Amino acid sequence: MIAIDWGTTSFRAYLLDDGGRILERREAAMGVMAISSGGFADVIDSQLPEWIDARRPRIVMSGMIGSRQGWKEVPYVRVPAGLTEIAAAMQEIGWGSRRKAWIVPGLATEDAAGVPDVMRGEETQLLGIMEPIDGGRCTVCLPGTHSKWAALAGGRILSFSTHMTGETFALLRKHSILGRTMTDGDDDDTAFDTGVERARDKGGLLHHIFGVRARTLIDNLGGNAAREYLSGVLIGHELLAAAGDDSPVHVVGTHGLARRYRRALEAMGRTVAVVDADGAATRGIFRLAQVREAGLP
Amino acid sequence: MIAIDWGTTSFRAYLLDDGGRILERREAAMGVMAISSGGFADVIDSQLPEWIDARRPRIVMSGMIGSRQGWKEVPYVRVPAGLTEIAAAMQEIGWGSRRKAWIVPGLATEDAAGVPDVMRGEETQLLGIMEPIDGGRCTVCLPGTHSKWAALAGGRILSFSTHMTGETFALLRKHSILGRTMTDGDDDDTAFDTGVERARDKGGLLHHIFGVRARTLIDNLGGNAAREYLSGVLIGHELLAAAGDDSPVHVVGTHGLARRYRRALEAMGRTVAVVDADGAATRGIFRLAQVREAGLP
Repeated sequence: MIAIDWGTTSFRAYLLDDGGRILERREAAMGVMAISSGGFADVIDSQLPEWIDARRPRIVMSGMIGSRQGWKEVPYVRVPAGLTEIAAAMQEIGWGSRRKAWIVPGLATEDAAGVPDVMRGEETQLLGIMEPIDGGRCTVCLPGTHSKWAALAGGRILSFSTHMTGETFALLRKHSILGRTMTDGDDDDTAFDTGVERARDKGGLLHHIFGVRARTLIDNLGGNAAREYLSGVLIGHELLAAAGDDSPVHVVGTHGLARRYRRALEAMGRTVAVVDADGAATRGIFRLAQVREAGLP
Repeated sequence: MIAIDWGTTSFRAYLLDDGGRILERREAAMGVMAISSGGFADVIDSQLPEWIDARRPRIVMSGMIGSRQGWKEVPYVRVPAGLTEIAAAMQEIGWGSRRKAWIVPGLATEDAAGVPDVMRGEETQLLGIMEPIDGGRCTVCLPGTHSKWAALAGGRILSFSTHMTGETFALLRKHSILGRTMTDGDDDDTAFDTGVERARDKGGLLHHIFGVRARTLIDNLGGNAAREYLSGVLIGHELLAAAGDDSPVHVVGTHGLARRYRRALEAMGRTVAVVDADGAATRGIFRLAQVREAGLP
């Protein structure tokens, strides 16, 4: 089968064998935002011709391709939801000469105050990492531009929340007065840890981030340390709001960001496991295809 | 005398009469960042020739002109500080044929956790509004790109804190995924109020701002309402962190931002007075010049 993770900025396709193992992968900067409406089928036809022609494999796509700006809007599934509900809500789309693909729905929830939250794409990663994780209740963190926190139990996603930590960091780094004096260098754990601790103080996030500027002027905080300190302040605020009770946290990812989250969580006395993110989305898509092929209940 | 409010992006000069009233004003996009080092004297000579030649008036400048990137770095005065301490720390600079000016220092403080905070320019506004305000302890808010909150008593600035609310709003409006679907329209008090209330909920600021996106997708929140809601979320978070105890709050400004702050504070049950900001900085500079001319103790 072919699993496609089709997000806002990139198109990632994987050819999987019958056991779900990745045989080949292909990536292009042809995210949903770069493709005009009606052009999605052309992307598949032109990017993956040999994969498709060979055996007319099953194609399952997840991510923004199922959004209003994507190929076809597939309604969000409300949590709690697991493999079965998500597979049942997948929608088929056809094109050309008997070509077809399934699109995975995103998930929606609302918090105690009635404010909604959404994900599209991350649900396949959550499904992909569920098997290796203990079946009991646990907390999963997918750090990134829009970090997702999910509570899982018994193979289902119970609830989740999104935190714009990565995007806020990037905005402050690139476009704010704070970024002007920052530099990109090696990790500076001391500066990062100080930022994480800072998040516990009174004053709020909007004050704490100005502290990066004030410390640059008064404490002569260097440009690299300032960047690391800001990262710590933002991640610290996210953790205080999102990490919830004291259940173990599974941080998904192998890159430096997962290391940062682990470090900050451990400083808060939390038990952390870093879960290998490689292939999580394709494993989730593979599981969904299996359930769908087995027939809906 | 001539009062100059010389900030990062603009140069604002005021010719004052002997009672501190504004006779003439002149403004140019010649902020500190736009002038190469050594070019500051030329700006004054070329922008204000008739003012200067006429009577060789006293010139007092405040703002980023006294920063490391300005004409001459004038060290911060630590709070608590009032007219006397600030006037005493003004530094003189000379150029050309017996021309000279004073530069007002900024203020520095640190919070209970030892993290510093700074202001340059706002101290003259605070000094300028002190006289009309009751001599008792009060809280003053200068809303803006970097909102300043100050506790005043007995004609002195006791403490202050900075919140990057305006800059964060501008970054999210211009450069984030939230801004893409926003529009600029009329004030929408309902949406704004909902955002202010949202700030009280659990989840933290980084989660609450993603809610703007989720509400756009799920609740069909419109582009103008989304902008107003985001404004409310950010201002709400600032107020919860900064507005402190229940003393009356004096919000400085006559523009729409002061109205927003008043509205949000009143929704929190606070007593609010909006103080006319027009001329606050020049009044503060005039008072500093008077004290300095009277001779230091």
